[in-house]
Parts: sequence; C-alpha cells; structure tokens
Amino acid sequence: MHLNRIGQSTIMLPHRPRILAGAAIVGPKEGEGPLRDDFDAIIQDDLFGEETWEKAESRFQYTAADTCIKKAGLTPEQIDISLGGDLLNQIMASALAARELHIPFLGLYGACSTMAESLCVGSMLVDGGYAEQVVCTASSHFCSAERQYRFPLEYGNQRPPTAQWTVTGAGSTIVSSNEKAPAICCATHVTLGRIVDMAIKDANNMGAAMAPAAADTITRHLQDTGRTPADYDLIITGDLGRVGHDVLLALMSERGVPLDPTRYIDCGLEVFSEDQDTHAGGSGCGCSAVVLGGHIFRRFREGDLRRVLFMATGALLSPTSNQQGESIPGIAHAIVLEADA
Amino acid sequence: MHLNRIGQSTIMLPHRPRILAGAAIVGPKEGEGPLRDDFDAIIQDDLFGEETWEKAESRFQYTAADTCIKKAGLTPEQIDISLGGDLLNQIMASALAARELHIPFLGLYGACSTMAESLCVGSMLVDGGYAEQVVCTASSHFCSAERQYRFPLEYGNQRPPTAQWTVTGAGSTIVSSNEKAPAICCATHVTLGRIVDMAIKDANNMGAAMAPAAADTITRHLQDTGRTPADYDLIITGDLGRVGHDVLLALMSERGVPLDPTRYIDCGLEVFSEDQDTHAGGSGCGCSAVVLGGHIFRRFREGDLRRVLFMATGALLSPTSNQQGESIPGIAHAIVLEADA
Repeated sequence: MHLNRIGQSTIMLPHRPRILAGAAIVGPKEGEGPLRDDFDAIIQDDLFGEETWEKAESRFQYTAADTCIKKAGLTPEQIDISLGGDLLNQIMASALAARELHIPFLGLYGACSTMAESLCVGSMLVDGGYAEQVVCTASSHFCSAERQYRFPLEYGNQRPPTAQWTVTGAGSTIVSSNEKAPAICCATHVTLGRIVDMAIKDANNMGAAMAPAAADTITRHLQDTGRTPADYDLIITGDLGRVGHDVLLALMSERGVPLDPTRYIDCGLEVFSEDQDTHAGGSGCGCSAVVLGGHIFRRFREGDLRRVLFMATGALLSPTSNQQGESIPGIAHAIVLEADA
Repeated sequence: MHLNRIGQSTIMLPHRPRILAGAAIVGPKEGEGPLRDDFDAIIQDDLFGEETWEKAESRFQYTAADTCIKKAGLTPEQIDISLGGDLLNQIMASALAARELHIPFLGLYGACSTMAESLCVGSMLVDGGYAEQVVCTASSHFCSAERQYRFPLEYGNQRPPTAQWTVTGAGSTIVSSNEKAPAICCATHVTLGRIVDMAIKDANNMGAAMAPAAADTITRHLQDTGRTPADYDLIITGDLGRVGHDVLLALMSERGVPLDPTRYIDCGLEVFSEDQDTHAGGSGCGCSAVVLGGHIFRRFREGDLRRVLFMATGALLSPTSNQQGESIPGIAHAIVLEADA
C-alpha cells in the first residue's frame, strides 16, 4: 500500500485539498485590535445574547461555522464532517454548536492547538476521499476560560506579565476536494505534534511551556521535507505570546536553524496591540483560529502569501493536573498551506 | 477525485486496514466480572501505584497502549500516530499517557464514544496511507469520573436504579496497513455520528440520552450499505446499559428495523454481572474499549465472529452544561469489523 509520507513523520497530501472559505467571529476587545478589518463579525455583546459565557462561546462557534459554510456557497447538508474543539471541560461549546449544525461530528481536544489539529485531520480525510467537504472550527472565550482555568472574573485577580489574554472568538475553515470551486489556498503537508514537556509548571507562562513543542515540530518538518525556513513566506505559531515567541526564536537559533523574525509571526502577538494591556499577548483555541480564518486567508487572497507553515500550539494542562503538581505537556501540529497552483 | 462513500454518509475503507492487536487493562471490580478471562491484566490497586485517581487512569491508559504495541510485535517508534481520549477535563489521562509514549498524538473528545471515534479516524488515516500504524486508546476510571461528574466518593451519594457504573480500565487497538502481519480482523466501513438530543436532562440516565443517537447511526448505516441487522453476527453498543439497551431495541422496532436481541449486545451489560450491584450496567470510555480489546477480539480470533458493527455512544454533557439546564447531546460512531478474508 502506498504511504503518503516524506521523511520520518511528515505526511503528504497528494491531492492538495482546497480551502474554500474561512470565517472569523470575534468579541469586542478583538474588534478593537489591529486585525479588526479582517473579521467577518465583531460581536459587541460578549454574552452573544446567551445567559452564560459557555453558551456564548458555543454561539460564537456555531456562527463561525455557519458563516464559513455560507461563504463557501454551501449548505450544512453538503458538509460531510464537522471537526472541532475548544478549551472547556468536555468541549461543551463544540458539542452544543454541533447539535445545531447537525453534521457528523468529530470532537477534538488539543487545547490551543485545536485549529491546526482539526485542519490536519480534516485535510487528510478530504485528501483520502473519506469526505468531500469538511468544516474545521475552534473557539475560546476570555470569560469562560478565566473562570474555568483561573479565577472568577469578579475576584479581580492580578495577572503576571507572562500571562496571556484568552481570545473571545471562533474561526472556521472549509476544506474541500472540489477542484472547480475557487480556493483561497491548498493544504499540502501535515506534521503532527508529539508531546514535549520541559517541566514548566506555571500556568501563567504557557508560552514558555509550548515553545519547545513548536521547536520540535518545526525541526522535524524541515528535516522531513528538506526545506529551510526561507522556503516559507511566513511561519505562523498559534499563541506562544511574547515569551514563547522569543523562546522559540532562541531555541531554533540554538539548533542552527534560525527563524527570520520578519517572516515569523505568532497569532497571539498579531491579534492585540501592545496598548490593549493583554500582557504577553492573546491565547486560546480561538486566537489562531480567528487570525487564520480572517487575517491569513485575506493575505492569501490578495496574493501577499504563497506558502505558509501554520502551526498552532497547545498546553495540555488541566486545573486538576496543575493542582496535582504535574508540569505542562506542550504539543504543536503543523500544516503547510500553499496558494493554488 | 474518488470519494470512498456509500449511500449518504457511510465511508468505505477499500484497503481494509488491519487490526493487529488489542489490549485491555482493568481494575479489580472488572476483574471479578464475567469477562475476567479476556483481559490482559487485572490491576488490584485502583490507584495503580499513583497518588491520584487521575494519574492512575493515565497509568491504565499508558499500560493498555504499551501492552497493545508489544502484542503487535512493534515498538512505539513504529507507531505513526496515537489517537486517544478520556472523560476527564482537558483529557488529562490521555495527555499524560501520550507524554510517556512520545508518539505524535491526536487528542479526541467523544465522551464514551471515544473508542469508536479513535478507531474510525485511525482506520481512515491508515486506509488512506497517512499512517502505516496507529494506536487507538480510550480509558475511564470509576473514582476520577465520580468526583468529576457527580460527588466525591467520601460523600456516599445514593445512586438511582438508572445510574451506571464507570468502568475502571483502558483498551487499546493497533490498526495497520501491513498486509503480511497476522490480523485479528479488518475495518471495512465507518459511519460517523451526528448529535441527537432528545431533551433528556438526567445525568443519571445517560443510556436513555444516548440510545436515540445509536438508533440514528444504525439506521443511516443500514440504509447506506443496503444491509439488514442480520448481516452482522453481532451489533455492539458501547455503554447504553440496561435502560438504553431496551430503549434502542424499542426505537429500532418502531422504525421497522428490529434488532435480534440474541445478536445485539451492549458492552455495559457484558462487563459486569447483575450481582455486582452496578444498577444499569457499566459505562465510561473504558467500557467499550476493554470489551472490544479483550472480549470481542478474542471471539474474532476463535472464529466465533466474522462481521460486527461496533458502535460506541457518547453523552456530550459536562457538569457545567448540566448545571446550566442544558439537555444531554448524544452521539454514536460506528465501524464495521470483519474477519480477514
């Protein structure tokens, strides 16, 4: 049987599954940030008309998927599989959104790597002919994340400088095998992440916990493909934030494969400006999801980008594992997106 | 591009990916049940040498995957992807087990449908040549589940007759494209589940909440394939328990596609005997995982089974969604396993 593999662990997608549409729905703070013009909708009410933060997050996720399906000129009935996840216990936001979409659903948990995980799995399933069209979605919400992982908002907890600000929003992407529909870009390679744990236990310093996983995945990807960072217009990490961004640059330099800082961005540093007081930058599954679905796809459409490595990183901690003294396992999944040939 | 689909939504696996091994590691209560001889190990200490229930669950999961890899005559380095999940917040047991395995990891959340979800995704990835070998794993633990979903064990909460008993254990399966290795059975078709929610809100009656999702998936599967229940030696649900088992029989009769009760089993009713005082039967991701990895695969090896529909069901609730008044979304993923031709 033919194996679609290059090198040790990078997967090729010979049929180049096509990204037909992206969508990004964000909250008010994200709507005041530098990418405000790239989003499909800025919802001023962060409860989104719901009674709880968790249900609001689900509404963001449903709206992103629904908007994305419509932007691709499709209906939910034409989507074979919905792949999605979020940060909440038992991925509550995704489950409630999937109930409304009524599409066969694969629930994922990859913490903040979820957007890349869903795109990797979705692209492989489309490439192999197991689905004609899939929708990949991830969401997060500042308020639901704070109360689940840290403290109730009402407590007014002080945040250390390494802390990041969870993005309120959801991003969604349609991957399709339809060669006739106009595409934003194609998916060509996937490098799945391994768990890398450097014994960091500070849940307010997730960037440092995740950066080694990003370095591991980039290194394996470049070795497998025989490429260098210069082969990419942009290398994009999910939400390493200021600390993790700098740690990744240092780690890659140490390994003798330095990244060009002008061609490497972290979504957590793009989504908020420095004067928005988010400390080390944005985070959450929604962070890379809305930057990809809004900003990156716009730059592909405008011809500004031809080939990128999109890699979202996840910190696979839980409040329980943290309380039990466990360090933070990091993971990073990467996918190559290229302009349609 | 060729689409591997039959009917509306059933996926064909033309290369018939092969199940090389299964493993099941269980706790003491499961080791006293009717399937005791089918398990690879019965761990008498339900803390498994760890300090907490959650870390113990992770140890069950790691041990199941490690045992399974060894039973297939492989090493972790020969496994391309590990797919797994559990019921804990942020799938803590799976993340810690994946850290030890050091294999590229796809985290899944499908509640008690996880064993079927991991097998469905893993089989598609192997069938398409995106992986040569994958390990699919799911776990649950009575003590970690009780304190997370219900009450601390020390509280001594009374359980209603519809309540089920979460299985302590983990099951694991190796799926491979290697046509030369001896196989237990092959995977031939996948029908992914949609969310079905019949407005049941009682978290102590999950069988009733999940049975309609099982009926939806079986019905679509039979319509797509043109088969009848008689085409299967056994139809296997994950953990509907006594209540859900009977609801599913009634629902299928209503739809004019009655299941033969002598050729339909629910893992939740197989894993414990009636005198073990588990009320409506076993439950949890680990329930279908250990019954498949231990009991079902043994019956395949002995020639007793030639073709089964394995379908694990999940209740995608969280304590938060329940407290916020949400009903329980159910899901059921199905995979056809056939004896090697």
